[in-house]
This record gives sequence, C-alpha cells and structure tokens, in this order.
Amino acid sequence: MQDKKQRPLLHKKKEGLAPGALVYVGDTIEEQTSIRTHRYSNGYYGQEEGFSKTEEGTLWVEITGLKDIREIVRIAKEFSLSNLSLEDVFSTDQRLKVDRYDSYLSATLRILDSKETPEQQLSLFLGKNWVLSIAENKSDVFEPLVRQLATNQSKLQAGSAGMLFHSLMDRVVDQYLVKADELELKTEHLEEQVITSPQSTDAPTIHQHKAEILRLRRMTSPLREILTTLLRSESEYLDKNTLFLLKDIQDHALWLSEECDMLRETVSGIMEVYLSSLDMRMNSIMKVLTIISTIFIPLTFLTGLYGMNFATMPFTTAWWGFYAIVFCCILVVALMVIYFRRKQWW
Amino acid sequence: MQDKKQRPLLHKKKEGLAPGALVYVGDTIEEQTSIRTHRYSNGYYGQEEGFSKTEEGTLWVEITGLKDIREIVRIAKEFSLSNLSLEDVFSTDQRLKVDRYDSYLSATLRILDSKETPEQQLSLFLGKNWVLSIAENKSDVFEPLVRQLATNQSKLQAGSAGMLFHSLMDRVVDQYLVKADELELKTEHLEEQVITSPQSTDAPTIHQHKAEILRLRRMTSPLREILTTLLRSESEYLDKNTLFLLKDIQDHALWLSEECDMLRETVSGIMEVYLSSLDMRMNSIMKVLTIISTIFIPLTFLTGLYGMNFATMPFTTAWWGFYAIVFCCILVVALMVIYFRRKQWW
Amino acid sequence: MQDKKQRPLLHKKKEGLAPGALVYVGDTIEEQTSIRTHRYSNGYYGQEEGFSKTEEGTLWVEITGLKDIREIVRIAKEFSLSNLSLEDVFSTDQRLKVDRYDSYLSATLRILDSKETPEQQLSLFLGKNWVLSIAENKSDVFEPLVRQLATNQSKLQAGSAGMLFHSLMDRVVDQYLVKADELELKTEHLEEQVITSPQSTDAPTIHQHKAEILRLRRMTSPLREILTTLLRSESEYLDKNTLFLLKDIQDHALWLSEECDMLRETVSGIMEVYLSSLDMRMNSIMKVLTIISTIFIPLTFLTGLYGMNFATMPFTTAWWGFYAIVFCCILVVALMVIYFRRKQWW
Amino acid sequence: MQDKKQRPLLHKKKEGLAPGALVYVGDTIEEQTSIRTHRYSNGYYGQEEGFSKTEEGTLWVEITGLKDIREIVRIAKEFSLSNLSLEDVFSTDQRLKVDRYDSYLSATLRILDSKETPEQQLSLFLGKNWVLSIAENKSDVFEPLVRQLATNQSKLQAGSAGMLFHSLMDRVVDQYLVKADELELKTEHLEEQVITSPQSTDAPTIHQHKAEILRLRRMTSPLREILTTLLRSESEYLDKNTLFLLKDIQDHALWLSEECDMLRETVSGIMEVYLSSLDMRMNSIMKVLTIISTIFIPLTFLTGLYGMNFATMPFTTAWWGFYAIVFCCILVVALMVIYFRRKQWW
Amino acid sequence: MQDKKQRPLLHKKKEGLAPGALVYVGDTIEEQTSIRTHRYSNGYYGQEEGFSKTEEGTLWVEITGLKDIREIVRIAKEFSLSNLSLEDVFSTDQRLKVDRYDSYLSATLRILDSKETPEQQLSLFLGKNWVLSIAENKSDVFEPLVRQLATNQSKLQAGSAGMLFHSLMDRVVDQYLVKADELELKTEHLEEQVITSPQSTDAPTIHQHKAEILRLRRMTSPLREILTTLLRSESEYLDKNTLFLLKDIQDHALWLSEECDMLRETVSGIMEVYLSSLDMRMNSIMKVLTIISTIFIPLTFLTGLYGMNFATMPFTTAWWGFYAIVFCCILVVALMVIYFRRKQWW
Repeated sequence: MQDKKQRPLLHKKKEGLAPGALVYVGDTIEEQTSIRTHRYSNGYYGQEEGFSKTEEGTLWVEITGLKDIREIVRIAKEFSLSNLSLEDVFSTDQRLKVDRYDSYLSATLRILDSKETPEQQLSLFLGKNWVLSIAENKSDVFEPLVRQLATNQSKLQAGSAGMLFHSLMDRVVDQYLVKADELELKTEHLEEQVITSPQSTDAPTIHQHKAEILRLRRMTSPLREILTTLLRSESEYLDKNTLFLLKDIQDHALWLSEECDMLRETVSGIMEVYLSSLDMRMNSIMKVLTIISTIFIPLTFLTGLYGMNFATMPFTTAWWGFYAIVFCCILVVALMVIYFRRKQWW
Repeated sequence: MQDKKQRPLLHKKKEGLAPGALVYVGDTIEEQTSIRTHRYSNGYYGQEEGFSKTEEGTLWVEITGLKDIREIVRIAKEFSLSNLSLEDVFSTDQRLKVDRYDSYLSATLRILDSKETPEQQLSLFLGKNWVLSIAENKSDVFEPLVRQLATNQSKLQAGSAGMLFHSLMDRVVDQYLVKADELELKTEHLEEQVITSPQSTDAPTIHQHKAEILRLRRMTSPLREILTTLLRSESEYLDKNTLFLLKDIQDHALWLSEECDMLRETVSGIMEVYLSSLDMRMNSIMKVLTIISTIFIPLTFLTGLYGMNFATMPFTTAWWGFYAIVFCCILVVALMVIYFRRKQWW
Repeated sequence: MQDKKQRPLLHKKKEGLAPGALVYVGDTIEEQTSIRTHRYSNGYYGQEEGFSKTEEGTLWVEITGLKDIREIVRIAKEFSLSNLSLEDVFSTDQRLKVDRYDSYLSATLRILDSKETPEQQLSLFLGKNWVLSIAENKSDVFEPLVRQLATNQSKLQAGSAGMLFHSLMDRVVDQYLVKADELELKTEHLEEQVITSPQSTDAPTIHQHKAEILRLRRMTSPLREILTTLLRSESEYLDKNTLFLLKDIQDHALWLSEECDMLRETVSGIMEVYLSSLDMRMNSIMKVLTIISTIFIPLTFLTGLYGMNFATMPFTTAWWGFYAIVFCCILVVALMVIYFRRKQWW
Repeated sequence: MQDKKQRPLLHKKKEGLAPGALVYVGDTIEEQTSIRTHRYSNGYYGQEEGFSKTEEGTLWVEITGLKDIREIVRIAKEFSLSNLSLEDVFSTDQRLKVDRYDSYLSATLRILDSKETPEQQLSLFLGKNWVLSIAENKSDVFEPLVRQLATNQSKLQAGSAGMLFHSLMDRVVDQYLVKADELELKTEHLEEQVITSPQSTDAPTIHQHKAEILRLRRMTSPLREILTTLLRSESEYLDKNTLFLLKDIQDHALWLSEECDMLRETVSGIMEVYLSSLDMRMNSIMKVLTIISTIFIPLTFLTGLYGMNFATMPFTTAWWGFYAIVFCCILVVALMVIYFRRKQWW
Repeated sequence: MQDKKQRPLLHKKKEGLAPGALVYVGDTIEEQTSIRTHRYSNGYYGQEEGFSKTEEGTLWVEITGLKDIREIVRIAKEFSLSNLSLEDVFSTDQRLKVDRYDSYLSATLRILDSKETPEQQLSLFLGKNWVLSIAENKSDVFEPLVRQLATNQSKLQAGSAGMLFHSLMDRVVDQYLVKADELELKTEHLEEQVITSPQSTDAPTIHQHKAEILRLRRMTSPLREILTTLLRSESEYLDKNTLFLLKDIQDHALWLSEECDMLRETVSGIMEVYLSSLDMRMNSIMKVLTIISTIFIPLTFLTGLYGMNFATMPFTTAWWGFYAIVFCCILVVALMVIYFRRKQWW
C-alpha cells in the first residue's frame, strides 16, 4: 500500500504549467544525480564518471537521480533530446510508453520497488550509437548488463546500441515477470489457506492482494501496445536482429497480460470461497445453537410444568414420579437426536 | 449527487425542435454574457471587453454566460460558425466531441464543478488565427493561460492559434486528471476505513463514491477517440508542433481511462470487503448468542428439574444436594468452555 | 412488463413461410389502415387523404395501420419497393436496421409506447423526392414535423426528401433519449430510496427497473451501427447537408449507448446497496435478540437455582437472601451492558 | 440436461485417427440411411427414392441416417466432395461452420431436438445445380420446403440451387429463433414466479434455465460470422438474389445473439432477486424469533424470580401479589410491542 | 494443484541472462535425452536410434528429455536452428506460439500431464523435408502417428513433412479437446451434485474445478491466433493440402475457446447455486429453531407463572387447575401450528 500513498495529487502540482516546463513532479525526495558513461565496442569496454562526448564506439550514458536538473539538461542537449522528452523524464508518474522522434527513440518504463529503492521511472533514449538511461534512483537492476558489457567478445559488447536498448528493456520486463511469479505464488498460498483454514485469513488480505495484482496489471497493460509499436516502427536504430529479440519481449508481455488476468480471476474466486466459508461457519454455529435449544427448551417446559404450585397434580405423590419425568426427558432427547441425525445435521 | 438532479428531462425540452434551433436547454439559471477579447502576437498582448474584429495578431474571444443569445450569434456569424455548431453551444448537455467544419474545428468539452461554479459545458472553436471559447459560467480555469499569454516571449504568446487551442484543452483535461487523483485518494481512504473499521462506513457511501467514478469515466470516455480524431484530422489549423503536444493529452486520456477502470474495480472490491465485514460481524454476534445459550439453557433445565414439586426426589433432603447441583453446573460450563475453545470460537 | 407478454412466439408464426410472404406477424389487433399524403415544395404545402401519384414537389406518404394489406402493397408497388422490404413492414418484430436498395433506402425503427399507443414498428423509405412511412398505429410523434412542413419557408419545407427522412428519424431517436432521461430520473429516485429508506423498496422493483433499461439498451443497440452505415452509404438520396445532420443523431446514439451502460451499472450498484441493507437489518435484528438473550438467560438460570426444592440451601432463610439475588441480577445486567457498549453494539 | 449427457467423451473416440478417416463419432445409435432425390425446374417437380445422377433440372439429394457409410460415400463421390467434408459429416459434434471448396460450398448446421428426434447435425452442400443435405435423423423440419418445391410456379421451384440452400438454412435458423422465443417466454415466467412467489421456485431451476440459454447462445454464436463469410464469399453458386435473402438470415442471427445476451443478463437478475428473497425470508423468520424471545424471555425471568424458595420475599403473602406480577408482564409486553412497532418490525 | 506448485519462480532463474543463453529453466528433474529418427517416403519407413543426417526421404527426428544439451545443440545446428529457438526449447515455461524463421517454422506447444508424465513443453520445427520434435519427457501421445507412418501407402507416409507437422499438432490439440471433454463431464457431475445434494460438495471443490478450467483456457488461448498465423504464413513448407487440414485444427481451437468460456460461466453458476443452497440450509435451520422457540418459550412462561411462590394464586387449589394449564398449553401449540402452516413454514 505504501507506494500508492506516496503520490497524493501529482496532477495538481503540474496543473497549469506550460507544456515542456521542467519541474520535477515526483513525490519522493530527489536523489543526488550520478552519471556513469559506458563506452564499448567489440573487444573494448571503458567506464567513467560524468559524461563527455566522443565519437568512437557505442555509448551508454547512465543517469540516476534527478536532482541536478541543469546537468541532465546539458547532457540531453548534447543528444538533442526535445523538451517534451525531458518533461517526461521529470514527470515521474508517466504511463509506460514509446515515442519516436526524428533523431531518437524514447521509452518510458517503470522499475518496480525493491528492498532498497522505491518504484521509480526509467527513461530510455536510443539514438545512433548511443543509449541514454535516466532513472530516479540508483538500483542494481542493470548490473548484470554492465558485467556482460565488460566481458570481451560477449554478444552485448559486440552488438549495436539497439541491442543494448533491448537488453535494458528486457531487464525491466523481467522484473515484471518475477513480480507476476511472486504474485502467483502468493495467490496459491492464499488459495490453500482459504481452502484449508479459512479463519486464518480475512477479506481485507485477499482484497489487498487483488489490488496488488490490479496495480501490476494496470502498470504493464501498455506493454503489448508498446512492443507492437516498436516492432512496427522500422526505426533505423533497431536492426533486424534486435527486432527479433524484441519479439521475445512481446511474448513475455502477452504472457504477463494473461497471467494478470488469470490471477485476478483466481483471486475473485478465492474471495468467493472465503465468503462461502463465512456462510458455512455461520451455518455450523447456528446448528449448534439450534440443536441445543431444540433439545432443552421443550425439556425446560416439561420441568416447568411440574414446577407449578397446584395443590393437586398427577403423580406428584408417587415415588416414581420424578423418575418418570427424567425418563421422559431422556426419551425426548433421544428422539431429537434421531431426528437431527436423519436431517444430517450432525 | 446534486449536479445530476439539476438536469431532469433535458431531451424533453428539445424534442421536436427543428435542427439548428437556438434554444438554451441547460437547467441552471443562465449567467449574464460577458465577452473578453485577447489579442496577441509574439511580443504583444492586449485585452479588451466585448469584441470587434480586426485582422492583426492572433485572437482569443472568451465568452462566458449564455444569456445574451443575440450577441453570441452575432460574434459566431463573424467567425462564420454554422448553425449546428451554435445549437451545440446552447444545448449544454452534449457529449464531449470534436467536429471538423470547412473553415474551423470545434470541440465540445465540459469544465468540472468547482466550489463556486457548477459543472458546465465549454465550446471551443479554432480557425485561422483565432480561437473562440464559449462557457456557461465564469470560472478561473483559464487564468494561468491568460497570464502566460500576457508574458512577453512566452511560448504561448509566440505560438499559433492551434497552440492556444491545445493549451485550453490541456487545462480542461488536467482538471479531469486532478479529479481522478482526488477520487483515487478518496478510494484509498475508503479502502483503509473498510479494512480497519468497517462499521464507520456504509454501503451507500461506497456506492455513491462508485457512482462518482462512473460519472467521471462516462464523461471522459469520448476523450481518447476525440484525440485520435484530432491527431488524424490533418487540419490546417493544427501545426505539427501542436499535434505533438496533443499526443501528450492523448497519453493523459489513456491514463485517465485506465485509472477510472482500476478505481471502479477497486471500489467493487471495497464493497465486497465491506459486505464480508457485515457477514463477519453477524458471525461474531451469533457466536456470543450461541455460546451464552448453549451454556445456560442446559443449566436452566437442570435447575428446572429440581424445581419440580414431586413428593420424593433423590438427594433433596441431603444437606449437600444443592452444592452437588451447583458443582454439576460448574462442570457443565467448564466442559462447554473447553468444547468451544476446541472449536476455536473464542 | 405487459408489452413483452404481447409477443409470445412470433417466430413460430412465421416459421416455414417462403421469404417475401406477406403475413402480418404482429400480436396486437391490426389497426385500420389510414393514408395521408403530404406534398410540399419550398413555399407550398398540401395534404390529402389517400394517395395518388404525381410528379411535382416532394412527397411524404404516411401510412398508419397495417390492416389493408392490398392497398399498402399497391402503394409500395408505385414506389417499386421490393417484396423483402414489404415483408419487413409486416413482420413487426424487426431489429432496428437500415437497408440500401437500388432505388431507395429503407429504415426500420420502433416508436416507443405512449399512453395511448403500444410500442410499434415504423418503416421509413426514402427515394428520389419521396418518403414513405408505414407505422403500425396512429401516434402524434410526427405532428410537430407536419406543422413545420406546413410553415412556409421553414427549413423542412425548403429541404430535400432526405431532410424529411432525417427529421423523421430524429423524432424517433429523440423518443429514446427522452425515455433514457426518464429511466435516469427513476434510477436516481430508486438510488435515493435505497439509501434513505431501503425497506420502502424491494428487489423485484429494482430488477424490473433494470429489465426496462436492458430493454431500451437492446432495442437501441443497433442505432450506432445504423447511423455509421447511413453516414458511409453515399446514397444519392442523402445530400451532404442531411449527412451532416445525421451526424448529430449519431452523437445522440453514442450518448444513448453510454447512458444505458451507466444506468445498468448504477442499477447493479443499487441492488448491491439494497442487499447490503438486508444484511444490516439482519444484523440489527440479531443484535436485539442476542442482547436480550444474553442478559436474561443467565439471570433465569440464577433464579432457577434458587427455585430448586432442596431442603437446605444457603441463605434461603435469611431475610436479605431475595434482595441479594436481585442485586446480583442487577449487577449482571450492568456488566453485560458495559460489555456490549465496549463491543459497540449499542 | 439429457442431450448433454449423450456425448461423453467424443473427442476421445476420434483421438489419433488420421484426418479424413470416416468413422461415425456420434453417440446415439445410428439411424438407417434413407435417401430421397428431389428433381425440379420451373414448372416441374419429381421425387424418387435413392439417387442416380442425371443432368437436367436442379437436384436436391436429401440423406437422413448415417448408417450406410458406403452409400453416402458413393453419393459424395458423385458430387466430388472432399474427404475432409465427409469426415465433418460423420463427426457429429461439429461447430456450426461454412467452408468453401473449389467446386462446392459446405455448411455444417445443427437441428435442435424436437419431441421425436434428438439434436442432430445437418451438413449442407451447394454446388452447381445441386444441393446435398445429410442429417443424422429424420425430421420434418424441411417438409414445408418440399411442399413449396412441389407447388408449380412457386418461387422456390423457379429459383436456383442457391435459393434452396438459403431456404434450408433459413428453416434451421428459424428453429433457433423459435427456441429463443420459448426461452424468453420461460424467462418471463420464471421472472414472474420469482417476483410473486419466490418459494415456488429454486436456484437449481433458475440455473438450469440459464444453462439452456448459454447452450443455445454457444451453439449459435458462430452464425453471425458464418453469414458474414457467406455474404462476402462471392461464390458462383450464390446469385445476387440469394445473397440478398441471406442478409435477412444475418439480421436474424444478430437478433438471436442480442436476444441470448439479454436473456442471460435477465436470468442473472432473476437469480439475484431469488437470492434476495431468501435473505428477506430469513429476515422475517428471525424477526418472529426475536420478537417472541424478546417478549417472553424477560417475563420468564420475572416469574423465575418469584419462583425462588426464599423464606422471606416481598409481596408473596399479599393477595394482590400474583396479580401485580401478571400486570407487570402485560406492561412489559405492551412496551415491547410499542418498541417493535417504532422499529417497524411489524 | 500439484502441477502449479512445480514452477515456483521460473522467471527468477532466467533473470539477467543474455538472450539466447541455453540454460534449462524447467523445474522437474531433467530426463535422459533419447533420440529417435524416423525416415520415410511413400512406401518406405525406417526407424533408428540417434541421428545422422542423410538426404533421402522425409525425416522426423524425435528428441525426448533435455539432459544432454550438447547433443541436442549438435542436432539443432545440423538443421541450422537459431539460438533463440534453442533457448525457447530449454525454457520450458513458454506460452504456446509459432515463429517463422528463414529456413524453418517453429511451434511451441504443451503436452498435458497424463498418468505417467507431468505437463511438458513440446517444440516442433518444420523445415524442408524434415520435422524436429523436442519434448521434455517421453510420452505415448505420438505412438499412433508412428504406427501410421510405418503403414505402407498410408496418407501420412505419402505426405509431406508439413503433413507430419500437422499431424503432430493435431495430436496435441486433440489432447486439449479430450481434456475439455473431461472438464465438461466433471462440470456436469458437479452441477448434478450441487443440485441434488449440495452438502456433498463444497466451495473449494468448485473453486478448484474452476481453476482447472481457467488453466486450460489460459494455456490454449493463444491457439486461435497461432493457427491464424500459420494459415496466413504462406510458408513454403506448408503445402495447400496441409493448410486445408490446419483449418480443421483452427475449428477445434475455436470450439475449445468457446467450450472453456461456457464451462467457466457454468461453474460460476454452480457456485451461485451452491451458495444459495447454503442460504436455504440456513433458512431451514433457523426455521426449526424459530418454530421450537416460538412454541415453547411462551409455554415456559405460562408454567413459570404458576411456579411462583405467592400465597394466593387463582385456581391453585382447584383439582382441575393443573389440567386447565395443560389444556392452555395444548391450545397455544395448536394456534402456533396453524399460524406457521399459514405462513407456509412447514
């Protein structure tokens, strides 16, 4: 729940601003900007802090933290990013999307929250020979890629900027898949719990789990469309090889969308089972009450009858009177028991 | 709820009129018409009351209040608006829409109710070098734009009429986003309330909240289609730059539509949790009744047994008889308590 | 409900007939056929009983009542209507539809039931310079149009046959809008009732209201498609002006479809609130029972204890014994009250 | 229900067969094959048992019963049907479909169960001048067509083979319409029953009715698509006239699909009303219990109080003591009654 | 349920791997790789263990078990499979899909679990004159095809590699149909159980059955799209004849999708009926309690009245006093019985 409460009225902040105005509208404290430049070509890999443009090799400029707006704008201008693109970078509540500009391709994605970092927005820009990634916070999502880049003769090192762009997207989408797997696991756990011991769970828990599924579903719902756009974009920056790999991500996106739908439906079913368990519980409670009442209320009447203070009552003076009544009671109980057995209440 | 009751049978009023007949079919008292003309070009901005046509610069004629039909028609004729367009202006229950006419583009939007003004219809017309906006009531939604226009060298001042048209639409759509944010906040509040203290809320509250979401959803549902139409319209009045900006509004419209869908589903879930809380409450009430009844009804029978007036009853004369019965009672209670503990009712 | 019961097994009647067979398959008693011919051109309007063909001006032949099949067929043949069109006229359970024939355009619509007339089918035919309308019963839906036609220089009088065709359709669709408005009003009324005093309504009432909404929705669902067909038909009988006006009807059809969807969803919500009110009522009933039982059943046991007829019972001979028990009872009640207060049952 | 149980594991039987293998996979006992040939041209009609090919006139070969596979295959070969078509004929659990082959058109339909015959599959084949119909069982669905064929100068006799093909399809689709009408009638009956006397019906009845609607809906769902295929097929065997008539069946298919959807939704509503009636019933049962308990349990306590065997109790010796208690009881009852009246429980 | 638990966090394992990395990500213990080569042409069939390439005839290489990655890669290289294809083979949690490569066509399918084997992935590759099938485990699904291949002059033996490819797919899809049939049978069984003896089933059972339907539906949902892709692919490896046969599988896929939808809806209805049976049961339990309580509680009060120890009570000394009270009791019971009968509670 907590990540939702972090963004109260984002749209209010931005209301009435001219389009293209660069104001950070996120809700967490802005992180210090840190810039890393990876420069590589087949057989070569270099990494440096900060950024200074050179022409050789493929470039990946990795920016984390949005505090130093001026520096980010400077780098963006080096790559001739449009103002609208930049505005998207700083409005950290964007829907996932892909935009085609004249000299580059931009993708807006979201990195899920991990133990250390909150959910954050990631902007990717792909141009000729360069990739620019701007994230709100530092995270170790891309570390495996850095390692692959640094490995001489690795596929990624030998590949185009488009290949790197693909790998970055792939890492992000993989996160969603892992999250979906976790949700599935938790769904199965809930399912089992509801079936075996319904009283150990409750409706709010199920509801919150469903809300989490809905949130993942909503966040990732534009993915399919995005990948279709990319696959059809015929951009010069995406070589045929990369397009082929992107099809794989598209498969993942389809899987994700179906998974979310199935999870949602399953959780609805779990809620239904939980509610029916409440009903069954009620039934069993009422049965106990009814059995006890139905057996003892008539008996109480019987004893009440002989508790009356009439001068003459039959059998009151006989020594076996009391025992006769007790016998009657036992008889009534026996009959009742047989009756309830017949009705299969026991 | 109140804004819905204001329009009882709008369609009845208009029934049987010839198309293009100018009759105001709104339901609130018509506001006095007030006309403001903004004239600007890059580096220049002038504002005047009323309207007189001149050729220079870009023109924004801002009309609020529909009372003075004759004056509005006069101005409309100056811009050669068709009668159908005018009819739409005065039928203040229109669906959001965009229409292309030969010499201009029209958009029918709705401004949400604020503290001072009720929900109202806004008609926007975009022609060569001019924008005409006709609203039912005065509101301060567009004040930031007026300020931007008055700022020398501002983007808006330097931009085309299409740019202004975009800005006006943007302001209106921003309202919807803010409203959606508010509804999300309220949804989260309701969610928390239902989870932590379900008795502090009730079904009608949840239902009314859902109705509000449905209303926003329905009102804004044509937005996506409208923006697709605009983006594909290839109108001469929308330059490439403006079209690019309109894509941003389209993103907002998509976000809005998904947000409404998710809110609706979440509120359905909240209702479900609330209903389950009613069931759980019932269960706990019934448990109390059942435990008390099940413990005391048998005891009452026991005492009733010895309350009978038989001449000879066993142990009645023994000094320990009464204490034996009391002991029996305590035993029964203890057994029952153990039984209910086993059944985890406590 | 009653209008549904009027058509029990319409399709049975028609089963096995050759296509184009003219058999009236409606379920109400056929009305006497009455024929009115309106002849007009700009500045001229004449009306006569019956029909005889002439070449001048625009013609509107208005037939009501399907009894005189032979006469209707005669007139239809004058306009060279196809047999299939005629079959549609006499099968009065058609879905709304538009068909293009070589020499004319046909539209099958439905006029809603009013106080005097039941729901009926209306067939419109548009040819060069003529419109033929065939309705099952007389109704005053088109009277405003007749008045407009009779007004010299009125738009309708000056317009083409297509314009009249549009006006007729517009009148019919306006009915649907008015009906939808009525349903909305009734929905709001139901909503208020369910929220403020749920016991004053019941599930069947809500269900029947929903059924009415579903019926309107279903009847009007083909409208959107029909108007899209008309707008794309490029028929020679629909001039550009009329097409423009038809777009307005299309807007209405979209509004109608959204309205019906929202109403349906709102009514589902109302049902939910109503059902939850039943649950809440149950809860409050059970609370009363539980409170009373929980307080008095233990007390009854207490008194029962001292009602036993043992020879020696403690305190029975003390003068304060009775008062002590009464005091105990009051104590128990007080404790119970505090307990229930704590549980917020009061 | 019974027609569903007839086909237990149809797909198991066929599993692993080579495509085109002719094995009857229906589940009812195969009927004896009977072959009737209708030969007609305008003004001539002849009917004979069995089949021998000749060139003159239009031919309708009507086969019922699938037992004599060899003979059916022989006839099929005469018309050069492909093996796959034949396989479809013998796999009597096909989805409705239309296939285009080089020299003919095939349609797989289903005839609903009547009093005498179970639900069965009907395969129609349309070629140049001939129609071949193969049904699982004899039925009288097509008798009216035979009569029309035999009528000299009738439309059908004068028409093409395509016209006959249309008439056969029309007959089959008419069945579905009649079935839908029946289901609507039954739905209305159920609706009335649930509203007026809910205890006279039960959930399984409503569920089974819904299941029947779902079954019809599912069976006929491919119809729309089939007719669109046919209308677009531009087959040489379907002349323009027939295509025109097929549009009529398409209208019926649309009607059917909407009808089924509305019925389904209505039945869901009926279930809801029924369930709410259970709740209301429960409420009224609980009210009775609560009223009785709430009135008498306190009274019983009161009498219990004076049933105690203390030596000194106030008023016990007064002659009016008993009457005072009785008066108290009446007072308590009166107060309770007023209380419940206020709460509108009565 | 168990097959779901076997794959806990598949996507985690694969996270961060370079695309095309060959790591087995399934969750069951890998089976020993076994390779069988079927070589056939019309009139000839040979089978051998292992694989060595030759040019004559059509080839079907059947690999089961993924343990010997090196050997599989070797064979794959012989057929010039791309690395991505191979990756798909080893990631055994793929969505059903079809991919077109330059020199072959690949299909990823799933074989359902049988008694001996768990659910497994099957990868099919179709090239010129060869088919390669790679399955996770041995199963006897394809044995009938082997037998057909070995039969001289059989269609399959005489057909192209595409024909074999079709047959393999057909076998797999047939499995889904059989599974759907089984689910339908079980659904009917559940339906009957819920209707005739609802207490013999419970919500979790119904829910699990629904989950199974959802699982089949989700797994097979890509089938329609896959077959549309295949049918439109115009691959050189699929001759016209095979495409025709594939249309049959497409029909099956459509049937499957509709079947799953209907089953899902039916199971939802069954749950509804089950829940209503809980309500009805509750009603009947409450009726028993209410009847007993309502009859005996007033009687107990009556007897309590005469159990009071007042000195003077009316009729206490009369010999008929006791009998009068007993008569009163009988009267009250009789009146109550009549009352409940009237209310139709019995």
